[in-house]
Amino acid sequence: MILLDGKKLSEEILDEIAKKVDKIKKNNKKVPHLAAILVGNDGASETYVASKVKNCEKVGFNSTFIRLDADVSEQKLLETIQDLNENSDIDGFIVQLPLPKHINESKITDAILPSKDVDGFHPTNVGYLALGNPKFVSATPNGVMEMLKRYDIDTEGKYCVVLGRSNIVGSPMAILMSKNTKPGNATVTVCHSKTRNLIEFTSKADILIVAIGKPEFITSNMVKEGAVIIDVGIHRVADASKKSGFKLVGDVKFDEVAPKSSYITPVPGGVGLMTICSLLQNTLKATENSF
Amino acid sequence: MILLDGKKLSEEILDEIAKKVDKIKKNNKKVPHLAAILVGNDGASETYVASKVKNCEKVGFNSTFIRLDADVSEQKLLETIQDLNENSDIDGFIVQLPLPKHINESKITDAILPSKDVDGFHPTNVGYLALGNPKFVSATPNGVMEMLKRYDIDTEGKYCVVLGRSNIVGSPMAILMSKNTKPGNATVTVCHSKTRNLIEFTSKADILIVAIGKPEFITSNMVKEGAVIIDVGIHRVADASKKSGFKLVGDVKFDEVAPKSSYITPVPGGVGLMTICSLLQNTLKATENSF
Repeated sequence: MILLDGKKLSEEILDEIAKKVDKIKKNNKKVPHLAAILVGNDGASETYVASKVKNCEKVGFNSTFIRLDADVSEQKLLETIQDLNENSDIDGFIVQLPLPKHINESKITDAILPSKDVDGFHPTNVGYLALGNPKFVSATPNGVMEMLKRYDIDTEGKYCVVLGRSNIVGSPMAILMSKNTKPGNATVTVCHSKTRNLIEFTSKADILIVAIGKPEFITSNMVKEGAVIIDVGIHRVADASKKSGFKLVGDVKFDEVAPKSSYITPVPGGVGLMTICSLLQNTLKATENSF
Repeated sequence: MILLDGKKLSEEILDEIAKKVDKIKKNNKKVPHLAAILVGNDGASETYVASKVKNCEKVGFNSTFIRLDADVSEQKLLETIQDLNENSDIDGFIVQLPLPKHINESKITDAILPSKDVDGFHPTNVGYLALGNPKFVSATPNGVMEMLKRYDIDTEGKYCVVLGRSNIVGSPMAILMSKNTKPGNATVTVCHSKTRNLIEFTSKADILIVAIGKPEFITSNMVKEGAVIIDVGIHRVADASKKSGFKLVGDVKFDEVAPKSSYITPVPGGVGLMTICSLLQNTLKATENSF
């Protein structure tokens, strides 16, 4: 069993990006500039955005952090987006989700210029992905593909089962894995809440990608001997033995599944850490496109 | 075994559209207007476009047929598209594919205003489909979904295998069938040229959608007793017993598969006839959106 080490990989990638930024600076070219909009003061969202901004600085990007009050009007948010769309110094930007209930999320996503949509949520970017011509792929599926690529995992002709059909993970993941690319070219099944006899699918999978949002849902009896296991879930569960009172687990019961797998992502330290790299990779790409 | 009768269904749908157009005319609202651009004089393309225009007239739409020479420049074609984008009398339009080799097809598709893209080929429309919020779905997948709906075929929780991953059929078909919709909500596997042990997938399918482009490829041993069979293929094969010297067949060996199926589309007279309805339905939708 080989651990798919998100920590090591993400450090490698951040380092590569930092080197590219150094080169950009030496050549007096445009330094990548990412802006992030945070609406309100949800604790988790604040942490995510702060971490994104921090990583921007780490690799030498410029960054702009825009805070808007929780009661900001949809119109005002749309105007802020318009300003960023038109600001040629900003190469890419994100609006941290979720948004307060009085704001229509898809209206916001649709307003971002596709060429600056480094989160890859705009319908046009989702469309390019579905057409096999991806521009900006959203963070988690991009991170998983990067992981498979860098560990040189053979996916062609393999049977891949994706658990979950969300717009930000399961659905794009399945599309990417089935395209004529490397990694990719797998025979892919998407399973979801309406799937019957789930175990019949999971137990045949050479590659199992789990994004179902249920703590330790996948047990060893559900997986094939030698499978590649990608765990996208992350949950806090109570653990009296920890000082914090909780531990982090994924959608996969790691301790019993790991010995049966050929490759497996730990939680934490797996897919989660790859997502920040995807955002920075996309921003760099946005800047290069604008050269 | 029940035949999924594309001829009967398509006539029903054309009749419904004609009634809606009558009502639009009575109320002095905008009459749907479809434009079609044909580049060059490929025989098959000419026949397709002529049939689309004819069906427009049949249901009471206005139609405009634009012919451009085979050696038209990409720039000139883009200008023609821009004119149609800006012409408020045109609700929707199509550019008949394939295009001559000196023209970049995706550049052309991308230039069509998504709100007039009644073929559903623009990345933004593909994206809306992938996000589970379809606006204009391309003709074949839309026709198949309409067929499943009108025959009230239960798809929820069923195992659906899609053969083929093309951008215009297999890929959108798989996405639509796996979404939380009715029809839809199936557990879907996409098979393609790199799939190993194809029969292991096809023989378990409750619903088998075949868009693989090989005459009579699917034989009775490859399908499950009682399966729903949707055959998207259409091929001319030599047949000395016919006056024309050929017959039309699908991707499925109809005579041996039909007795084993619960529902099956004939070729011709199946899915093919549904596609023209999709185009007209989309054009009507485009007009209604502009009201």
